Amino acid sequence: MPATPAYASLCATYTRLHHFQHFQSLGMWDGSVNMPPGGNETRASAMAELGLLVHGIETDPKLKGLIDAAEQEPLDDLARANVREIRRRWRHANLLPAELVEAKTIATARCEHAWRTQRETQDWKGFLPNLRAVVALARREARLLGEAQGLSPYDALMDRFEPGVRSAEVERIFGDVKTWLPGFIRTAVERQKADPAPEAKGPFPVERQRALGLAVMKLLGFDFERGRLDVSAHPFCGGVPEDVRITTRYNEDDFAGSFMAVIHETGHARYEQNLPRETVALPVGRARSAGIHESQSLAFEMQVARSPAFLRFIAPVVREHLGDQPAFSDESLIRRYRRVKPDLIRVEADELCYPAHIILRFEIERLLVNGEIETEDIPGLWDAKMADYLGLDTRGNFKDGCMQDVHWAEGLMGYFPSYTLGAMCAAQYFATIRRAVPDLDARIGTGDLRPVFDWLGDNIWRQASRYETDELMRRATGEPLNPAHFRAHLEARYLAS
Amino acid sequence: MPATPAYASLCATYTRLHHFQHFQSLGMWDGSVNMPPGGNETRASAMAELGLLVHGIETDPKLKGLIDAAEQEPLDDLARANVREIRRRWRHANLLPAELVEAKTIATARCEHAWRTQRETQDWKGFLPNLRAVVALARREARLLGEAQGLSPYDALMDRFEPGVRSAEVERIFGDVKTWLPGFIRTAVERQKADPAPEAKGPFPVERQRALGLAVMKLLGFDFERGRLDVSAHPFCGGVPEDVRITTRYNEDDFAGSFMAVIHETGHARYEQNLPRETVALPVGRARSAGIHESQSLAFEMQVARSPAFLRFIAPVVREHLGDQPAFSDESLIRRYRRVKPDLIRVEADELCYPAHIILRFEIERLLVNGEIETEDIPGLWDAKMADYLGLDTRGNFKDGCMQDVHWAEGLMGYFPSYTLGAMCAAQYFATIRRAVPDLDARIGTGDLRPVFDWLGDNIWRQASRYETDELMRRATGEPLNPAHFRAHLEARYLAS
Repeated sequence: MPATPAYASLCATYTRLHHFQHFQSLGMWDGSVNMPPGGNETRASAMAELGLLVHGIETDPKLKGLIDAAEQEPLDDLARANVREIRRRWRHANLLPAELVEAKTIATARCEHAWRTQRETQDWKGFLPNLRAVVALARREARLLGEAQGLSPYDALMDRFEPGVRSAEVERIFGDVKTWLPGFIRTAVERQKADPAPEAKGPFPVERQRALGLAVMKLLGFDFERGRLDVSAHPFCGGVPEDVRITTRYNEDDFAGSFMAVIHETGHARYEQNLPRETVALPVGRARSAGIHESQSLAFEMQVARSPAFLRFIAPVVREHLGDQPAFSDESLIRRYRRVKPDLIRVEADELCYPAHIILRFEIERLLVNGEIETEDIPGLWDAKMADYLGLDTRGNFKDGCMQDVHWAEGLMGYFPSYTLGAMCAAQYFATIRRAVPDLDARIGTGDLRPVFDWLGDNIWRQASRYETDELMRRATGEPLNPAHFRAHLEARYLAS
Repeated sequence: MPATPAYASLCATYTRLHHFQHFQSLGMWDGSVNMPPGGNETRASAMAELGLLVHGIETDPKLKGLIDAAEQEPLDDLARANVREIRRRWRHANLLPAELVEAKTIATARCEHAWRTQRETQDWKGFLPNLRAVVALARREARLLGEAQGLSPYDALMDRFEPGVRSAEVERIFGDVKTWLPGFIRTAVERQKADPAPEAKGPFPVERQRALGLAVMKLLGFDFERGRLDVSAHPFCGGVPEDVRITTRYNEDDFAGSFMAVIHETGHARYEQNLPRETVALPVGRARSAGIHESQSLAFEMQVARSPAFLRFIAPVVREHLGDQPAFSDESLIRRYRRVKPDLIRVEADELCYPAHIILRFEIERLLVNGEIETEDIPGLWDAKMADYLGLDTRGNFKDGCMQDVHWAEGLMGYFPSYTLGAMCAAQYFATIRRAVPDLDARIGTGDLRPVFDWLGDNIWRQASRYETDELMRRATGEPLNPAHFRAHLEARYLAS
């Protein structure tokens, strides 16, 4: 009998869950990468069955007593943090009835699958009933979670992705950003008019783009013994920490989107691949939060890959794979990836416009979940906010408007703020790294990314969920999240000489 | 409450199992097609966990009472057949302890994964302990299954794949084949010396071979809405009936192997894709046996695709994809695919040599499972039998000798006889079809395969497991398995004119 029997029993249960969640991840990845359309119904049923099983394990009445007992056992700090994370997961799982979990699994699988074709055909009318079903379930979920925890419905959903972060704080941070961002974007666009980046001339065959993507993944330390690169409608990082599957999508006319998507997802992948092996099956060994996850992808994409130093280093690799042309000179690539151009698609947005996409989604989904608007109100609000924040007209354009993201179809409401919170964390990391490594840009310019990997590995990746987010940020950077670093970073990149 | 509550409860349980087995199939397919080597440990653990879950459901003590009760309920013939198949599955599952199932899942996953590299490096010594572990578990399994059913250990394993077929009968059939096959092969080789097929000159780029494979799959009626074609070390047909995943492997120097592998696996796939939709989750709705499954792949490969009529029809398609050359004339392709040439690799063997490969494996694995030889005796026996039956020297060649197949690594002992039993069934089907459709070859020659698809669809695919194998064969062809049709088919193809 172990000295801490309740804790040992909890670890066994969560390791078992880890094994079943392996198949949830695999089913999800395969559904997006490989599955033919006719396979969807049976996959959705199988995913629902597996979801019920997982939910049943997470809501086993014995767990509560085990968690209570484990909290009284003589545990070291890591085990204590594990129990804290187990209690968090237990609380979230136990607030939801099994029938709701199953209904949500089925509704989101159907909605996501239909979305793939409905988006292409601009079929908002066909999509609406599917999305309405998902929204109805998300609202029920949010109400149940919120009432039990004393949170508003939307805050309750956001708490699943950003434990401890509240929408009032996000509103305050985003409200500040809204005061300066639209003007900042206009200024940057104005300044760049004098010095446009030459357009790269395609086509860029998929196979060459893929080879370039694999080459840059290698440079960025992706471990191909424990992961792969594939294609899906929407780039994502899936799989399990021991076998991380990232995806991108290729456009033969434009290499730039796929290239950055690969770098972005590689940031997610390295976090997963470098979680501590010994606790990978346990809640304390998993990624801290969605925002911290996004801060890894954005550290790779925004802080490293779009920096002039890295672009000078990578430009010869781009030329080697895609051929030489004026658009691929060092300086052209730097201009290309610093280009600010308000556009319709979030995942292809530049760094400066990206927060506007997020604020818009945050505002809409918050109203939607809290029941202040209905699903059919989305396109109108979308059009109005796109006009306000980015000066763009999206009326009637569902494909590149409110149907562009998979998140809502998948029931991922409350997730969007994490992207911009992540961008802010990433800026804060690099302010910290630069203080310790004054010649950081020079080293990045030679392809030496070790200072970045070492810092992220020590301070974020191998910490997993040992500390709460605030504590993690404080230990890593000396202060809690401070959005001033993000604004300073943007000013240095887009407004300095 | 349904009129047949026990039966309804059984159907619910087996539908739930179908959903979990979905992930077993997906995990297996992904492991062979996509998974990087570093993902193996966690996949093996997850598969073991899932195997335990499935085993737990199959051995739920309540099932016995439900099966007994369902047998007393007023069921129609199909439901009654379903209960018969449920009892068969229940019996097999309940004879094995959970720890044995788990140990076997882990041992076979490890052995199969190691085999992929050990085969390449001829590492028999490294492979031996892995295989020995699998054999030890297979023997325990065989003894437990055999003692409870009054069968020899090997018969008990074979019964899982060929319900009702016994090794004494297989020995009798194969013993007869051994009396004439080696001489038959020598005669055929001798006759063909005068008229060799020109060698096709490669390289044949993978992408073109793949396009040819997809084209022939389409001609053969593969439903791409519910399936796909991929690459693996060993061709197989996996996935689930609603989403069938077949694989092949490409050799840029030789298109012939991959081409026939695709046709072979398409035969398996059409059986799966055309099982009756309404019972696909239930035991009665699944494929009848391994031998009947192989009879579908061999109906496609041996009876259809290697016939002169089909080859004349397909030759222009081959030329269109791989370019014109003397080896791709109608008559050259016919000679190529009728060529008899004793060689080392089973999956690339010609129709005439194939049974020799099977008889060799049957004889070795039967001795191995019954404990009459040890794992380390395999290479010696392999070498001796290859010399006897095919006149080939395999000494020291593990890669293309006794390590060539994945079956033993996966613990699939007792399976090999099904291949040749399947070939015999396929010959019997075509003797039947020809009686009903005298101009069959003329129709195949125009690419009209409807008589074949209609007959297989009516008599085999949509019958699934409604009848026992003997009854299925009798209803389909008017007699039980009769190996004389196989011999007659071989004589007509290889010794006539």
